[in-house]
Amino acid sequence: MAYQLYYWPTIPGRGEFVRLALEYAGADYVDVAREPDGAGFGMQAMNELLEGEDAHAPFAVPCLRDGDVTVGQTAAILMYLGPRLGLVASDEAIRLWTHQLQLTIADAVVEAHDTHHPISSNLYYEDQRTEAMQRAADFRATRMPLFLNWFERVLVRNPAGGHWLAGSDISYADLSLFQFVSGLRYAFPRRAAQVLADTPRVNALCASIATHPRLAAYLASARRLPFSEEGIFRHYPELDEPDS
Amino acid sequence: MAYQLYYWPTIPGRGEFVRLALEYAGADYVDVAREPDGAGFGMQAMNELLEGEDAHAPFAVPCLRDGDVTVGQTAAILMYLGPRLGLVASDEAIRLWTHQLQLTIADAVVEAHDTHHPISSNLYYEDQRTEAMQRAADFRATRMPLFLNWFERVLVRNPAGGHWLAGSDISYADLSLFQFVSGLRYAFPRRAAQVLADTPRVNALCASIATHPRLAAYLASARRLPFSEEGIFRHYPELDEPDS
Repeated sequence: MAYQLYYWPTIPGRGEFVRLALEYAGADYVDVAREPDGAGFGMQAMNELLEGEDAHAPFAVPCLRDGDVTVGQTAAILMYLGPRLGLVASDEAIRLWTHQLQLTIADAVVEAHDTHHPISSNLYYEDQRTEAMQRAADFRATRMPLFLNWFERVLVRNPAGGHWLAGSDISYADLSLFQFVSGLRYAFPRRAAQVLADTPRVNALCASIATHPRLAAYLASARRLPFSEEGIFRHYPELDEPDS
Repeated sequence: MAYQLYYWPTIPGRGEFVRLALEYAGADYVDVAREPDGAGFGMQAMNELLEGEDAHAPFAVPCLRDGDVTVGQTAAILMYLGPRLGLVASDEAIRLWTHQLQLTIADAVVEAHDTHHPISSNLYYEDQRTEAMQRAADFRATRMPLFLNWFERVLVRNPAGGHWLAGSDISYADLSLFQFVSGLRYAFPRRAAQVLADTPRVNALCASIATHPRLAAYLASARRLPFSEEGIFRHYPELDEPDS
């Protein structure tokens, strides 16, 4: 039976980390809320999941259903899918490490989001623009390089070689790092290029993923939702200006 | 061999979520950075972990070492410890659900922290006090009730009874919810009391944990670090004022 992915239908957001794993693996899945409303489909079905009676209904989407199993939280979904999609090593220690990498990407994603919404997700960007400029300055100056340099170090230290983050093969964490870096390049083109100039292994990992045949086909398809000023990674030029 | 917990020695912080599990279970552990500097102990040992050559050195503490295994990320540490400490169900579906609950608590903890540091963790609170008052107002009005009401709903819907979050016995997620609620009561005594008046099952869970003999002894001991204005949960009265 096809996996059912529940996520907002108009933004890549956190759902995209799950989609990339499903697409890379060529898995059979339904992007539930992007289907027309109907029995088990559409936004209606997503609202029913979040407000319904499932004892394991998550706090927020993305959420995955696989038969009777309901899994929320992006990193937990990927931990669940990893072995099923062949996107994590079989070694238990490497599996745990892969999950930690994913959780660190999740932390970085929150910080990237909060550059444009430092006060409240319930307010418009325009109503917190001044504060966003302050938070973005800190993200550009300290947090973005801290995260990217740490992932570079993870690659350098991988005892199985410096090509992938964990073990000797690609994992869902590599796909998520690709998505995180893609988001940074969209939101902060100037600063991301500067920082990534010092992380050659992160760059090589991302370039390698982008040219994988099945993933390249996905990225060129209409299934790949574009970044925009409604998602996690938003390009507001003033948030990428040189630090004064 | 004793577990080795690495965390900042002067604040409860994220380390406390791990400590509570270890203490509740009566596990043998060393709080590494609270020991005097020496071979494998003290802040020196923690710095060596973070800056040293361990291929699985985490982005940040807390971090747990168990023999050859190094695990970072609070939720991953607790997922690792759960079965070893008898603090998670044996059923795989409930284990995954328990981990999701922990990840949701982790999300809530970030938001509680950012009420006093909405712009940058590299700046003093006093330098972002105005912005903190705005973010805290949103947290009090919308986010705190959203999270606590969701956990109440999880308790109500638990098919094994509404006493614990996942399954029929206490898990590490219950201990973490206790800590989260304790932090809210410290940081936002006025508003937390209001919201918790509507979440009787969350209250009962916390009260039950506080009276567990081994945990009560720990909470009364010097090992339990007090909340303060240096940690995640900080009491600044202006951040708990009634919404105007």
